[in-house]
Amino acid sequence: MTEEPSGGDLSRLRQLNAQAVLRALRDDKPLTLTELAKRTGLSRASTEDVARELIERGWVAEAEPTAGTVGRPARRYRFRADAGRVLGVDIGGHSIRALVTDLDGEVQHSTSVAVTPQLGRKERLAALDTCVAAALTGADVTAGQIWSTGVATTGLVDGTGKVMLSDSLAEWTGVDLAAHLRKLVGAPARVENDSKVAALAESWRGVARHAKDVVFLLAGVRTGTGLIIDGKLHRGFGNAAGEIGALPAIGWLKAPDQLRAWAGGKDEFEDVFLAARNGDRAAVRAVRRYTRDIAIGVSALILTLDPELLVIGGGFSRSADLVLQPLRAELDRWCLRTPEIRVSTFGDEGVALGAVRLALEQVESRLYDGTELSPAGIAGASGRRASGSAGER
Amino acid sequence: MTEEPSGGDLSRLRQLNAQAVLRALRDDKPLTLTELAKRTGLSRASTEDVARELIERGWVAEAEPTAGTVGRPARRYRFRADAGRVLGVDIGGHSIRALVTDLDGEVQHSTSVAVTPQLGRKERLAALDTCVAAALTGADVTAGQIWSTGVATTGLVDGTGKVMLSDSLAEWTGVDLAAHLRKLVGAPARVENDSKVAALAESWRGVARHAKDVVFLLAGVRTGTGLIIDGKLHRGFGNAAGEIGALPAIGWLKAPDQLRAWAGGKDEFEDVFLAARNGDRAAVRAVRRYTRDIAIGVSALILTLDPELLVIGGGFSRSADLVLQPLRAELDRWCLRTPEIRVSTFGDEGVALGAVRLALEQVESRLYDGTELSPAGIAGASGRRASGSAGER
Repeated sequence: MTEEPSGGDLSRLRQLNAQAVLRALRDDKPLTLTELAKRTGLSRASTEDVARELIERGWVAEAEPTAGTVGRPARRYRFRADAGRVLGVDIGGHSIRALVTDLDGEVQHSTSVAVTPQLGRKERLAALDTCVAAALTGADVTAGQIWSTGVATTGLVDGTGKVMLSDSLAEWTGVDLAAHLRKLVGAPARVENDSKVAALAESWRGVARHAKDVVFLLAGVRTGTGLIIDGKLHRGFGNAAGEIGALPAIGWLKAPDQLRAWAGGKDEFEDVFLAARNGDRAAVRAVRRYTRDIAIGVSALILTLDPELLVIGGGFSRSADLVLQPLRAELDRWCLRTPEIRVSTFGDEGVALGAVRLALEQVESRLYDGTELSPAGIAGASGRRASGSAGER
Repeated sequence: MTEEPSGGDLSRLRQLNAQAVLRALRDDKPLTLTELAKRTGLSRASTEDVARELIERGWVAEAEPTAGTVGRPARRYRFRADAGRVLGVDIGGHSIRALVTDLDGEVQHSTSVAVTPQLGRKERLAALDTCVAAALTGADVTAGQIWSTGVATTGLVDGTGKVMLSDSLAEWTGVDLAAHLRKLVGAPARVENDSKVAALAESWRGVARHAKDVVFLLAGVRTGTGLIIDGKLHRGFGNAAGEIGALPAIGWLKAPDQLRAWAGGKDEFEDVFLAARNGDRAAVRAVRRYTRDIAIGVSALILTLDPELLVIGGGFSRSADLVLQPLRAELDRWCLRTPEIRVSTFGDEGVALGAVRLALEQVESRLYDGTELSPAGIAGASGRRASGSAGER
């Protein structure tokens, strides 16, 4: 494969072989040539050709030999996660967060800026721009080096990346977030509801990564839910799954009022949890009442789906020690089978990590359908590598 | 393949080839030898050998030539749906129903007997035995000719076919229905909750057969639900999905009280619907209130799953003209997106048809894993064909 292929067919074949090799390396630990040939079904000679080409292009590297190997160790190849960068953004009512990661989702930099739900559309988008710029600077990359962006926001999002409905962020319904991010970063952008992508993050590398059916609860100033069914995010026919909270009868809309009442009408719920932890009886009562209200809707979800696992994430997951025991007692009261309950370990970053996963899904589908490997894609990748040092870190 | 294979390997290969041919014919319209060879990847000669053998064994037949074909028509082969029979049983509070069908699910005979929810365990099982015997007699088959049984019952069923929990049928918790049916019929038996299998029936050959995500509502004296997600019945981790009705907050437990009050405390709901249809204002009000109560839980399901389709089945589906318009109005009030609503066309047979599907799933998995094609399986099939005329009808 040192000479340039003459026909389009050969070029397409090379591309398919390159995809097969990349996919095998992306999904696995470093592989020897023999393993790689077996995994892809290519001949050993073809595999070696493809590997050499992918190394030249910066997609693949030779892995360090395993320590302790006796004799000459076989050469092993690995996917170069540092060949590119992706961006994940979480646009919430009280903060905006941006993560820059490599192609394995390893976080290079994380930034957040504080906002309020009342902020107007322009101001919120300006805060978003600031946050993204800070994340790129922090990760020492330019916008042009980002391959893909994932965006999470509260509210319903349509398939094109527009906010269909947001009743908690001012002037947010109708914002075309995909278009805004594409323009800002110059990469493809996908947008999804925050609870849904937080569920995705748990299923990807969080406490739900071994479970097939999961109810994820985003517990915070607002309550949301994301469903993993048969290992996949359940989006719904109109991308509107997981919105049980909109139903007044299940009590999620009024649940935070129990905490708000203690806090004198303000949304400063950390103080309530702090006071409850210190034994303030009114605060303990408020947390109990909040939990009781939340439990009705959670029970409805559990009775409906009978999941393997319930995951508690969102801002209140840091106070899970106060919520977990009364929640389990309420669920035992209503459910036929209370599932295992686990608390997210992602703290405030769960939604943004889910947005990263959304971005990586885009990269993977482009990688595997050959878009990223087409002459244009490769030129672009080379260009990106040439114009910055991202490929070297 | 006229001589007996000498080794176990060859026999296993023949079995695999036979499976491939059977699967292709089972899933499709009649196929020519050329089509069959292409579909299975076997050589033309091997395909012909296998087809001859399957015809000898009674699994496959030559199809009638298509009318109007010019010239000598190519021979076409079809799966013999009449090679075997399955049984589907629905054990409800007010009736027990049994269907005997061929391997395509074509109903050969349907029987039902009336029971009451108060009937004791022994009496209910005796009524079940009577109903099954009548169905077999009506279809002119003996118990030995049934290949597989599917059973549906109200209540929660565990993976082994035991009733885990039934609060509407007397003395029903703990009954080992799978064991009872296996003994009664002498064939493998699978047991499932009635709402779940009714959803399966709609997805198999009912109004939901083109939809991937479906909420099925079994509306009757009791209200139940079955979920089809991504084209498959969602059973849940502990086989307990779809039980949202157990939650008092969503109102399904008390919904029928609205109808019961009109009927003077009795469960004779057909009269209420009849009166409502004739303009009786108290009856119309009772139906409205019932619909309003049901709508809360249905909204919870729709908001959670955002399905493509809502299907109304069960006893009340015959009065869908009275329920549909107010139900849609209530759903529009609570849901972000009201899905298309369709009414089951199966009348009282939906659950029993779902039980048939359960039985056919067993036959298919045995057919495709080779169990039915093993020497023992084939001997059994031949024996069944020899002992009765089922194979000839």
